[in-house]
Amino acid sequence: MIGEVSEGRILRTILERTPASAFSLLGPGDDAAVISAPSGAVVATTDTLVEGPDFRAAWTNGYDLGWKAAAVNLADVAAMGARPTALLVALAVPKERRLSFVAALADGFRDACDALAPGCAVVGGDLTVSATLTVAVTALGDLEGRTAVTRAGARAGDDVAIAGEMGVAAHGLSVLFSRFHPDGTAVPVDPTKLAEGEAEAIAAQLRPVPPIGLGPVAAVAGATAMMDVSDGLALDARRLAEASGVTLSLEASALGVHPRRALAGGEDHALLATFPAGALPPGFRQIGSVIPAVENAPLLCDGEPVGPLGWDPYRDAGADAV
Amino acid sequence: MIGEVSEGRILRTILERTPASAFSLLGPGDDAAVISAPSGAVVATTDTLVEGPDFRAAWTNGYDLGWKAAAVNLADVAAMGARPTALLVALAVPKERRLSFVAALADGFRDACDALAPGCAVVGGDLTVSATLTVAVTALGDLEGRTAVTRAGARAGDDVAIAGEMGVAAHGLSVLFSRFHPDGTAVPVDPTKLAEGEAEAIAAQLRPVPPIGLGPVAAVAGATAMMDVSDGLALDARRLAEASGVTLSLEASALGVHPRRALAGGEDHALLATFPAGALPPGFRQIGSVIPAVENAPLLCDGEPVGPLGWDPYRDAGADAV
Repeated sequence: MIGEVSEGRILRTILERTPASAFSLLGPGDDAAVISAPSGAVVATTDTLVEGPDFRAAWTNGYDLGWKAAAVNLADVAAMGARPTALLVALAVPKERRLSFVAALADGFRDACDALAPGCAVVGGDLTVSATLTVAVTALGDLEGRTAVTRAGARAGDDVAIAGEMGVAAHGLSVLFSRFHPDGTAVPVDPTKLAEGEAEAIAAQLRPVPPIGLGPVAAVAGATAMMDVSDGLALDARRLAEASGVTLSLEASALGVHPRRALAGGEDHALLATFPAGALPPGFRQIGSVIPAVENAPLLCDGEPVGPLGWDPYRDAGADAV
Repeated sequence: MIGEVSEGRILRTILERTPASAFSLLGPGDDAAVISAPSGAVVATTDTLVEGPDFRAAWTNGYDLGWKAAAVNLADVAAMGARPTALLVALAVPKERRLSFVAALADGFRDACDALAPGCAVVGGDLTVSATLTVAVTALGDLEGRTAVTRAGARAGDDVAIAGEMGVAAHGLSVLFSRFHPDGTAVPVDPTKLAEGEAEAIAAQLRPVPPIGLGPVAAVAGATAMMDVSDGLALDARRLAEASGVTLSLEASALGVHPRRALAGGEDHALLATFPAGALPPGFRQIGSVIPAVENAPLLCDGEPVGPLGWDPYRDAGADAV
């Protein structure tokens, strides 16, 4: 158990699973890390996974949790058009947890960085005990000399495009809640009870694979606005439209076989971006167009206003419905 | 209660208390912040305060907690010789907490930055619910063209110096545990029950004032090694000595009126640094000298080996003794 192991031993277990970032000038072990910021600016974001509102222990494991905590933060860096350079991980672990859990978490961080953002790695962290398992991650990134792509630059006439999945992770979560959560208690997933596509949906929820490398690609291609879809397209596309002072007009036929699921479902961490008409880079597919702002309707689908069907995680946390 | 307030309202409450960082190129509200890194490198560190191991609700309040969470992270940046530029705050709050608590926390962050590191401010964050109140902070800093001052550069012949308090915060904690913690339950501090110096010691524990501005001053003056004393001088001076491959020889008479307390007590976040002989800048006072490594004795006080009397927070968390 973690509570019986010295801090030094836990740190060694983590560090031996933590390769150097290609951007690291000084790695873990001092008061702070030093990371290269060649373009003279650094992109920084933080996002936390808390046991309870963000995950249930019975459905996930240390590896998947490390992977997901890395992925959701890398996606926020990518959504600015930046290349992720480093992660810092603040880990609060119940003392009953085993050291192997922390080791698996470190493996998940390493493999997510390798797969999604080569060259990026954990450069620093903090470890404490807590009654509630909490993984708070800060991701840093470099703009490579470009300007950050914000949510505010979409202009009428632009194409609206997406890279990545829409609604798959939320479908996975609804399978978990509806079928592996009797009496309000999460139970392990029995793979023999899954229909076609459900295993993939659960994997998308527990171990998402956002298209991190396409963030810089979009920026180079001239994306006028971009964001990470974490709370569902209906809510996040609204936010982009309102920040830009335009309306986004989507086509349901471009949203896949489950348009409602695509609109409502969060946590895929797809990249939503707008580009000058016809300028979509490979990896992005068009889902609509930017039009001048329609009063009280920042988001349309097939010409009809779309309400904020997305997920306010704070309001709903603790509730089990998705 | 937080659980009944929308995420948007909570964020507005925080943002209206959050001035812009002088180094911010893009502030809160997008997927990530963008912070200036004029010297082409960024210093980054993360440190977390968790209710239980790191603080008790009865002894502190939102304002002090925000102040302390800022101060301990700013100290790690300063200890590299860097100037703090930005904080990111990942906040996990029980839904029973009031919105005024979060407002006070934001006030504490703002005032600590203003007082300790002018120009630095919160540039981004994340908010979630949790059964355990947790404040995870990442601090960024700029080296202003200098090389980072690590723990590893102390050389025989250097002076050993300190800036800031030694053992005062730990004394405050022992007053809290011994006198305001009956039956294992923290109770509010009654100021009429405090002897001379105890109110100041408690303030040093709850709202520390580390000498952040002296970090860059030490670097400019040619500090050969530096670190933030968070776990007590006995433990942290050992770490610096071992990283540098030397022995630090301290003089008890230079450690104040309570040398044992100064050696054992952590959490003042003083800056421990070594300088070429005679090169101490204002704000630092000499407490000893660097000598060639003495076998199995990285730290001496008045010529006698000093054991690691400091505090391994992970091992001891949950225990109430200090």
